[in-house]
Amino acid sequence: MSEQSNGPLIAIGGHEDKDGERRILKAIAERLNGGRLIIATVASHEPEGYFDAYKDAFAALGATDLIELYVDDRDETNDPAHKELIDGAAGIFFTGGDQLRIVSQLGDTPLESAVRDLHARGGVIAGTSAGASAQSETMLIGGSDGESYRIGELHMAPGLGLIPSVIIDQHFAERGRIGRLLGAVAHNPRILGIGIDEDTAIVVDGERFKVIGSGAVTIVDAEHVTRSNIAEAKPQRVLSIHNVTLHALSAGDEFNLATRKPCSPSES
Amino acid sequence: MSEQSNGPLIAIGGHEDKDGERRILKAIAERLNGGRLIIATVASHEPEGYFDAYKDAFAALGATDLIELYVDDRDETNDPAHKELIDGAAGIFFTGGDQLRIVSQLGDTPLESAVRDLHARGGVIAGTSAGASAQSETMLIGGSDGESYRIGELHMAPGLGLIPSVIIDQHFAERGRIGRLLGAVAHNPRILGIGIDEDTAIVVDGERFKVIGSGAVTIVDAEHVTRSNIAEAKPQRVLSIHNVTLHALSAGDEFNLATRKPCSPSES
Repeated sequence: MSEQSNGPLIAIGGHEDKDGERRILKAIAERLNGGRLIIATVASHEPEGYFDAYKDAFAALGATDLIELYVDDRDETNDPAHKELIDGAAGIFFTGGDQLRIVSQLGDTPLESAVRDLHARGGVIAGTSAGASAQSETMLIGGSDGESYRIGELHMAPGLGLIPSVIIDQHFAERGRIGRLLGAVAHNPRILGIGIDEDTAIVVDGERFKVIGSGAVTIVDAEHVTRSNIAEAKPQRVLSIHNVTLHALSAGDEFNLATRKPCSPSES
Repeated sequence: MSEQSNGPLIAIGGHEDKDGERRILKAIAERLNGGRLIIATVASHEPEGYFDAYKDAFAALGATDLIELYVDDRDETNDPAHKELIDGAAGIFFTGGDQLRIVSQLGDTPLESAVRDLHARGGVIAGTSAGASAQSETMLIGGSDGESYRIGELHMAPGLGLIPSVIIDQHFAERGRIGRLLGAVAHNPRILGIGIDEDTAIVVDGERFKVIGSGAVTIVDAEHVTRSNIAEAKPQRVLSIHNVTLHALSAGDEFNLATRKPCSPSES
């Protein structure tokens, strides 16, 4: 990335390796250039232990300047000390929990602005599980796993919007979430669906992202859909959707979010 | 169906409703025209109880002429009494268990011929779970559920081939099997992947099928795939496959297996 461009966005599907090769955490550590990483545990109601786990995992990768950011309610987001923390950091990592806690606590606060500023000046914005979902324009906040997708079961909410026009789902293969991601993109095909498996991440640099980690990233694109029953059918009805384009990507694969096409790493 | 044409093939994704509305079993019962239904429990190593469960479930639908067919090993398939049973039936229903038991016991035996003859003279061939998989040209006989699909994990075998050019997977949403179905069609895009959820079935009449039941049927079609790493990558590598066409279908939807396109019920 050049000096004036946005920093990388790293969205992880949850359960990233913390004691082995740590390919994903290493990708984050390398992008800090020795700067401070904030571990934002705001997604969790009981964040005890989260920070220590990451402190140990990152320390072995040479990233030792870590500090925890937690807010119990929106009032605390006005504390200038919190904002200064982000202003002085090289990156922020949102841990797992509930994506709705992240956006309902931080949305439209000085801390959200500080996160955007960090991104704009080239800082790393990373997140795992709920912290991955929160980065997208639209978040899934409910919807059943591992069963036929019924139209009334899905709940979405606006995310931080750092990655525009996408919806990110996590623990994707492990929790059988293709149905709910199809349901999400059926609502509005403008939104591209990105399902990230555990210990797998996308590293977004500008319009492109690269896949890292041990699992797959599944893209569902409803642009060419010829028919769906999302608007006609009753809530208990199972989704019909015809002509979805699907891509399964694995480590090393790249994808262009503007053209919505996979691209080989050598292509410009 | 006309008198000279093949009978319907009914492939069920497992766990069909046996004590409520029984939409799928009803579809089978209706097509027997009062004739005998054979419950083939050959997929199971311990089929005790299977027959009684179906006997009760079908009795309430007016189908009372049921008889069990079980063979312990291939030798028994030469017993003329078994063949006569199929010759005199209006339909056969393969229960769940292991699809490999069905084809390894019946493949290239007089009983397999009798099943084909039954189909050819308009009889109903139905199967649930393993009994659905066995109907397709190619069967999945192993491959992990609910995790990133790794190239070396998949095992396939020839099925009965009653439904040509397809591979049927069952318990599809419930066991998170999109990854292994994508892996299967990546091997040879000639084969269309059909994933059937529990309590959901396809009713194949000639080149078309209709979806019945409470869940979804997911079609993955690799015809327009531009790239996959199935032949290049190592067994532990995660599958990459670009530009798969996916359809999610639900009750009432129809699909044309020859054109590989969903078609509305009113289209000819």
